[in-house]
Amino acid sequence: MAKCSICGRDAVAYIRYQRRYLCREHYIEFVENKVRRSIKRYKLLSKGSKVLVSVSGGKDSAALLMALSRLSKEYQLKLYALHINLGIGEYSEKSLRASTEAAKMLRIPLIILNVKDLIGYTIPELARRLRRPVCSVCGLVKRYLINAVAVELGADAVALGHNADDLAVYSMKSFITQDLEYLDKLGPKTENIQGIAVGRIRPLYEVYEKESFLYAFLLGVPFIHDECPHVNHESLEQILKVKLNEVEEKKPGMKIMMLRNMAKRIRDLPRREYRVQSCRYCGLLSSTEVCSFCRMTARIHGEPLGPIVRSRVRELVKESESRQLSSAAG
Amino acid sequence: MAKCSICGRDAVAYIRYQRRYLCREHYIEFVENKVRRSIKRYKLLSKGSKVLVSVSGGKDSAALLMALSRLSKEYQLKLYALHINLGIGEYSEKSLRASTEAAKMLRIPLIILNVKDLIGYTIPELARRLRRPVCSVCGLVKRYLINAVAVELGADAVALGHNADDLAVYSMKSFITQDLEYLDKLGPKTENIQGIAVGRIRPLYEVYEKESFLYAFLLGVPFIHDECPHVNHESLEQILKVKLNEVEEKKPGMKIMMLRNMAKRIRDLPRREYRVQSCRYCGLLSSTEVCSFCRMTARIHGEPLGPIVRSRVRELVKESESRQLSSAAG
Repeated sequence: MAKCSICGRDAVAYIRYQRRYLCREHYIEFVENKVRRSIKRYKLLSKGSKVLVSVSGGKDSAALLMALSRLSKEYQLKLYALHINLGIGEYSEKSLRASTEAAKMLRIPLIILNVKDLIGYTIPELARRLRRPVCSVCGLVKRYLINAVAVELGADAVALGHNADDLAVYSMKSFITQDLEYLDKLGPKTENIQGIAVGRIRPLYEVYEKESFLYAFLLGVPFIHDECPHVNHESLEQILKVKLNEVEEKKPGMKIMMLRNMAKRIRDLPRREYRVQSCRYCGLLSSTEVCSFCRMTARIHGEPLGPIVRSRVRELVKESESRQLSSAAG
Repeated sequence: MAKCSICGRDAVAYIRYQRRYLCREHYIEFVENKVRRSIKRYKLLSKGSKVLVSVSGGKDSAALLMALSRLSKEYQLKLYALHINLGIGEYSEKSLRASTEAAKMLRIPLIILNVKDLIGYTIPELARRLRRPVCSVCGLVKRYLINAVAVELGADAVALGHNADDLAVYSMKSFITQDLEYLDKLGPKTENIQGIAVGRIRPLYEVYEKESFLYAFLLGVPFIHDECPHVNHESLEQILKVKLNEVEEKKPGMKIMMLRNMAKRIRDLPRREYRVQSCRYCGLLSSTEVCSFCRMTARIHGEPLGPIVRSRVRELVKESESRQLSSAAG
């Protein structure tokens, strides 16, 4: 059996682009050092930050929650987790269960939002009614709800679990379709806009999918292995994913090099010209007078649901905070 | 045997992204219509243009020379061909032979430059002396010589044989390394700079490698099948080439879509900030006081060779023009 290149114990993994074997402990340290380095390199967090971690129930958000939890003393973080139940059958049920268990294990307060309760329809039902692709509706709803919770919490940042493989694919796809403005949103960090939008950070920016999987697995965080049933394996995105992996196979480290270069150049890319404003209905960030969530829900319900959703979010955040206070008191 | 989707004759090719079969005549028309469309879409040529076609001896420059020759009446083009003998052993000898035969067949005046005669060393010898990669030295020398001939001729444009597959790979590589300024030079057209640089056009911008091959083959233009012995199949470029072909296989038309989108967005990309100036030695386009060709040759010979090379180019261009006059008179 291969031995750890650092300490000589049994190795659990081989890091191809560094040509070394690592044991369990050094592997965990290796991943956490990557996260630390990204926090420093991209100025993701300052000490004492209040961070809302978006948790889907999959390996990446499990790894993210674990890593931030283990680094929370060092960075004096105040962590909250958010899980959104999308209503995608058994997949969503299992995701909810895994997210709940992970948050419980790490003693991180978890806020749960249920799309059906808030909007009256599950994600697939919404997509059907709107005749829009499921993934596009899902993205819109998730972005809105995550931001609504983060603003309510007064969080300094929203942490997302995108790994290096995901981000390489999204970037490549944006390059192919020349949606250059979107590249701006794929960097390690987006900015806060006082009171209406909380910036997003990607602590796993330089962590590969395999690495986040093994890290979560070695530390025993619960996560589901299932893939969303709406993933389309014939999409350009999925094809690029496979092909980029094959390039990386021949040029180990290629994706990280690309992402690092991208992070440096993001400011030079063209930006979408729009006025930052707050939605006239719900008050959150919008590029037009009415935000896309309020517009979408108005199409279905005849009135924008932003304001109602925000007040429901407010209650849930308060409940979560008071639960925390009472558990801290008890 | 499959039949042409237009006229019912025996087909020679299947166009996957258009789902149709084409016979010899309609295939030739199909490729030439692509060239016509690119000329129009990207404003590559105006009527009566004097065009210097760079000819390597391979399939793409054979196709380019043939296509421009067949379109020369329609666009009233004055065509010249240029072949540069790089001194890469048998490969260069065969390339020279094929280029000479192609130009002869199409009755296009051919100017031949020999790198060893002009600079005293072949490309591989130069690379060795400079301790630089062969491909980088080759690119520099070719760009310089092509421009020198084009300026001397008073050409309106230099036509290059880059096909859609080449350009997709170069673009992708520039994106990965985030050499965004280089993308600016990969579009269908670069601009003229009065007296010091002739703009380059890429009439095969939307023509796939396979298409340019079959077009040249069907029309019987001589070309060599050999690949330059200095191509490194382990390079990122070559790996991307293979992988992008596999993506295209699953998403026919992807490369063209990307290139069209890119051509639209090129103006929005960051540009390298440099003063356009003329080299203090040779007078041609430079980004610094002394152009890279004069700097490189000075390192080897102790003095910049730009001025000598330019006067030799002037003689060769004059010879070629007087040969033409006498053959027209005869």
